[in-house]
Amino acid sequence: MARFGILTSGGDCPGLNAVIRGTVLQGEMVHGQEFVGYRGGYRGLVYGDVMPLERSVVRGISQQGGTILGTSRFGPYTEPDGTPQNILARMAGLDVDGVIAIGGDGTMAAANRLLEDGVPIVGVPKTIDNDLEATDYTFGFNTAVEIATEAVDRLRTTGNSHQRCMVLEVMGRHAGWIAMYAGIAGGAHAILIPEQPESLEQICTWVASVRDRGRAPMVVVAEGFTFPDMDQAHSHKGLDGFNRPRLGGIGEILAPLIEERTGVETRATVLGHIQRGGVPSAWDRVLGSRFGQAVSDLVADGDWGKMVALRGRDIVRVPFSDAVGHTKTVPLDQYRGARATFG
Amino acid sequence: MARFGILTSGGDCPGLNAVIRGTVLQGEMVHGQEFVGYRGGYRGLVYGDVMPLERSVVRGISQQGGTILGTSRFGPYTEPDGTPQNILARMAGLDVDGVIAIGGDGTMAAANRLLEDGVPIVGVPKTIDNDLEATDYTFGFNTAVEIATEAVDRLRTTGNSHQRCMVLEVMGRHAGWIAMYAGIAGGAHAILIPEQPESLEQICTWVASVRDRGRAPMVVVAEGFTFPDMDQAHSHKGLDGFNRPRLGGIGEILAPLIEERTGVETRATVLGHIQRGGVPSAWDRVLGSRFGQAVSDLVADGDWGKMVALRGRDIVRVPFSDAVGHTKTVPLDQYRGARATFG
Amino acid sequence: MARFGILTSGGDCPGLNAVIRGTVLQGEMVHGQEFVGYRGGYRGLVYGDVMPLERSVVRGISQQGGTILGTSRFGPYTEPDGTPQNILARMAGLDVDGVIAIGGDGTMAAANRLLEDGVPIVGVPKTIDNDLEATDYTFGFNTAVEIATEAVDRLRTTGNSHQRCMVLEVMGRHAGWIAMYAGIAGGAHAILIPEQPESLEQICTWVASVRDRGRAPMVVVAEGFTFPDMDQAHSHKGLDGFNRPRLGGIGEILAPLIEERTGVETRATVLGHIQRGGVPSAWDRVLGSRFGQAVSDLVADGDWGKMVALRGRDIVRVPFSDAVGHTKTVPLDQYRGARATFG
Amino acid sequence: MARFGILTSGGDCPGLNAVIRGTVLQGEMVHGQEFVGYRGGYRGLVYGDVMPLERSVVRGISQQGGTILGTSRFGPYTEPDGTPQNILARMAGLDVDGVIAIGGDGTMAAANRLLEDGVPIVGVPKTIDNDLEATDYTFGFNTAVEIATEAVDRLRTTGNSHQRCMVLEVMGRHAGWIAMYAGIAGGAHAILIPEQPESLEQICTWVASVRDRGRAPMVVVAEGFTFPDMDQAHSHKGLDGFNRPRLGGIGEILAPLIEERTGVETRATVLGHIQRGGVPSAWDRVLGSRFGQAVSDLVADGDWGKMVALRGRDIVRVPFSDAVGHTKTVPLDQYRGARATFG
Repeated sequence: MARFGILTSGGDCPGLNAVIRGTVLQGEMVHGQEFVGYRGGYRGLVYGDVMPLERSVVRGISQQGGTILGTSRFGPYTEPDGTPQNILARMAGLDVDGVIAIGGDGTMAAANRLLEDGVPIVGVPKTIDNDLEATDYTFGFNTAVEIATEAVDRLRTTGNSHQRCMVLEVMGRHAGWIAMYAGIAGGAHAILIPEQPESLEQICTWVASVRDRGRAPMVVVAEGFTFPDMDQAHSHKGLDGFNRPRLGGIGEILAPLIEERTGVETRATVLGHIQRGGVPSAWDRVLGSRFGQAVSDLVADGDWGKMVALRGRDIVRVPFSDAVGHTKTVPLDQYRGARATFG
Repeated sequence: MARFGILTSGGDCPGLNAVIRGTVLQGEMVHGQEFVGYRGGYRGLVYGDVMPLERSVVRGISQQGGTILGTSRFGPYTEPDGTPQNILARMAGLDVDGVIAIGGDGTMAAANRLLEDGVPIVGVPKTIDNDLEATDYTFGFNTAVEIATEAVDRLRTTGNSHQRCMVLEVMGRHAGWIAMYAGIAGGAHAILIPEQPESLEQICTWVASVRDRGRAPMVVVAEGFTFPDMDQAHSHKGLDGFNRPRLGGIGEILAPLIEERTGVETRATVLGHIQRGGVPSAWDRVLGSRFGQAVSDLVADGDWGKMVALRGRDIVRVPFSDAVGHTKTVPLDQYRGARATFG
Repeated sequence: MARFGILTSGGDCPGLNAVIRGTVLQGEMVHGQEFVGYRGGYRGLVYGDVMPLERSVVRGISQQGGTILGTSRFGPYTEPDGTPQNILARMAGLDVDGVIAIGGDGTMAAANRLLEDGVPIVGVPKTIDNDLEATDYTFGFNTAVEIATEAVDRLRTTGNSHQRCMVLEVMGRHAGWIAMYAGIAGGAHAILIPEQPESLEQICTWVASVRDRGRAPMVVVAEGFTFPDMDQAHSHKGLDGFNRPRLGGIGEILAPLIEERTGVETRATVLGHIQRGGVPSAWDRVLGSRFGQAVSDLVADGDWGKMVALRGRDIVRVPFSDAVGHTKTVPLDQYRGARATFG
Repeated sequence: MARFGILTSGGDCPGLNAVIRGTVLQGEMVHGQEFVGYRGGYRGLVYGDVMPLERSVVRGISQQGGTILGTSRFGPYTEPDGTPQNILARMAGLDVDGVIAIGGDGTMAAANRLLEDGVPIVGVPKTIDNDLEATDYTFGFNTAVEIATEAVDRLRTTGNSHQRCMVLEVMGRHAGWIAMYAGIAGGAHAILIPEQPESLEQICTWVASVRDRGRAPMVVVAEGFTFPDMDQAHSHKGLDGFNRPRLGGIGEILAPLIEERTGVETRATVLGHIQRGGVPSAWDRVLGSRFGQAVSDLVADGDWGKMVALRGRDIVRVPFSDAVGHTKTVPLDQYRGARATFG
């Protein structure tokens, strides 16, 4: 009976457990496969640290956040034991015929190297930021957007009651998808994303325009957003005569600058880890389940070196080489379409 | 200045207000358009019953369920006043240059007739059932799935505590999308949809198999599901010697039959109207907003006779003639993929 | 080391697992107690069907609905084996020094009989209906009210969009607490509870008054509400010349009658089991945890025949004899206070 | 006809709008009263800045966060115009017979001074921190606890997946009620409140103990918590040789210290303003509505100088003099009861 090892690698993400469950159910019931779970990402692969993964183990886990396998940011080749020979020997010792790696761009790059080194491996894309070009959407993104939008809804009522500008910082280091979606859903007056620098003057113009209409400005900013002269703008000389180093995230940098330049009392909130944990949305559970079922089919076919992906309504297979290193940023025309209604 | 009338027609759906708001914001700020809202669907069009629709009116409405315009199932031609001449005269009297109709298949069919009769009109697709072939997804569907999934999650704990079979009836007269998505997300042991009849024996086999594994069976059934000999199976002779007519929905028909044949105590819950009201999910607000912005562009171009639609990540335009009358059912291979893990 | 058995009896209720966890944590860490869990309520007590209950078993269960012990409506004395002698022998065989029974009025009455028959037993009150006089609030009630209120919020938007009267039937067989709280929180135009019959004329007067102000009437009705001549009002002669028996709940009885008499299109929704399952509210988890900690103290003191209860902000101990058989109904002055603003 | 002015003062709080609505409905329908709303707290009182408050204005506002009247932290006597003579003259000019002030301890203290200066005024207590001795609970607290508990639930899954210690900072400057409730509900391993200093060593002992059991430590800390030598512990010399001043809140101070001393990777999340905005819980809407109805009765009786309050299940009246300046902190025995199960 074919036997496969599943690992989750990188930051946790709502929907991981749905992938694991979908793979195991489809594998056991349709293909007669067996599974083990590697603990702690690639570390488990290198050291042969596994847990049993049977149908009874994955019972009801789709609605749990995080990953029952644990995860780490550890790559397979970063320790002395992390050699292809050792990894293949460990796999053989555990009767594992192939590996299913669930993770982001770094995980897929590592999977591609393992493949080149002879490890039978396939992938399931995971990024809460939704910034993988090879798939229309990744699971976890939807949950993050729902949580961020609820935060916008909540902050708005405080802003309106106190006539304050509220700044919400959400995830998105290289791509502003969460900010875009939560900003549109929450009716933000400005959305700031890494893909498109905006000047502090422009931001303050939007804020002042909202204030002048008698409303409380709502700004959603992705953590990776920068503005020209940012380092200069927010530093200030301390009592000791030296500039203070940059502290806090972009939200905390922006808030006092907006307040200073517009006169509108401004408060920043950093959503942080709350965006990535907890009960996954139904959408993410469905996408995770579909990915899981599809990756069981993938290993049943021995179609190594591929990653499952969503295209339109369909699940497709994409070679690692096409999937790795392509960041999906927010298209500028889509941003400009939203931007036209800011302020 | 160009001036357009917006109407919402058919059953209410989370995301309608986001469409209205998106249209008005984009129209005012990008195209310099003006808008009025027709009250109560096509009835408002026929009788010239309008409300002002300015930026200040649509403030913050995206997060409200329902439609601020009101809706009805009234067609434009079902009353004596409902003639093209009268409608065009009313539009002229109100300085309305074109109509934006937000609705489902029936609404689009009526819009197509109005178009043929000389009324400048465009459409925005709406169906909570997600069963319009011309668009990948419709707004409202996502919210309904989230609500139905939460219900599955809740019922499951009661089922487990009492070792009962719980049957949840969700919307879906002709297509089982909500049942499919909520069933997968909630980990149902059987999902029953209109597209695919299953015999009572098969259903009871699934239920018994779950019970035999010591778990509480969870069945999600779309309101339009039927099974062979359904009318006969659930009728029973009353004290008066006559068969009782069919009462209640499919959930209430199934529950006693399952209980009788498997011996597993079974309870039905009909989710009903709760699925279609209330705060829309972020996803539906984004999709509604994008549809709204796109339909403002559509009337700016005078591209009458088109409906906006989602294809992959893009918003496209589809002629009414291609959009009307094509029901998008759950693909049978997708159903069979899920079905393989039932029980 | 003292060793106690815990059982949950009657309908499931959000917060049961918090009680179990609170008891075990407090017992193990503060009093050095041990615990077993009786499966399926009193049935487990009679047949000695137990599961281990250690700290590791109760990990993270507070946020789960239902009860990990399972429950039943089975009393201890309803089967041949259900004798005090047998029960005490089973307890001795399992080294169980006393029993903690979590349940409602019937469970407490049974506990009282067991006590009189020599079984060392204490109680934790449980009723989702909040109708036990001996305690200010019971866990589960808060969660039910939050769920019912969310349903009111959702139905309201549909009512407003379609100008319909929406009727929501919630739990409450003998007391209308859930209806009162959800009705007030959701701003219902009429709240109907078992404690206070209202005539169909009065109900329709409220509905018509709301309609006349241009709004959509919202009615919240407890399942135990009745109105004078109810049986006559909703029955109708069938084709066979006989009156049909009463079908469905009070919501489904009221809706067509309201529609017929006021001319306002009316829809009923029966919330049903959704109210009692799923993730408990924080409030119910806290109350459950406090009850659990307090009952561990209770058995540590050997204070048999008592039930823990909430009075103001404090947890107190109440003798079974004072707790059993006293239904806490909605005070009529509180109902009349709310009623003055109906319509 | 008697006419009263309502103002909301201090930080916003879920449930304020329910109070306003409850007052207006009860006042109009039961007592025949009229109302105006003062804009922006006491500022509106001083400058006679009012908005109409009729039944139609308060429609559906109970489910909105914030306050439709706006609020400020401005006291009545802090500006030149803020004299009793001017305030009474403004009231006379607007035909206002008395004032209803909704706010916290500072608001009530100001109300008491106004009373002594001849202004007919009554109060409704408001504090999200639940720290007013005169009332068992205040509205807003329940919503804050639910939001904070959801955050604990979410963070826990990330902690478990990454084997990290998660620290959540919640509101509570002088009293730790939110931390206590959310910590108990979420099953935190340590709860840190202002009322009870704990040493860094003790905190790290708890964290290490959880880690040693293979679990991810969860710490909930109130913003007002301090530990001995805190200022020293978290300061460090900068490149310039001076100690850095304290930056960030207690969560951000604790996280690196815990990580440094236990070796457990630790992350802090500051919940901040999200706790106080958005849709109020049903419980807070009910409490707000009851307070509103009761305060309408209060002014109907001309019972000036009183504040409404919750005692057990009842709404009572408390003189300002008894209500002001008494902080309700978490009872130490209740804290110690919870503390016994930490780690």
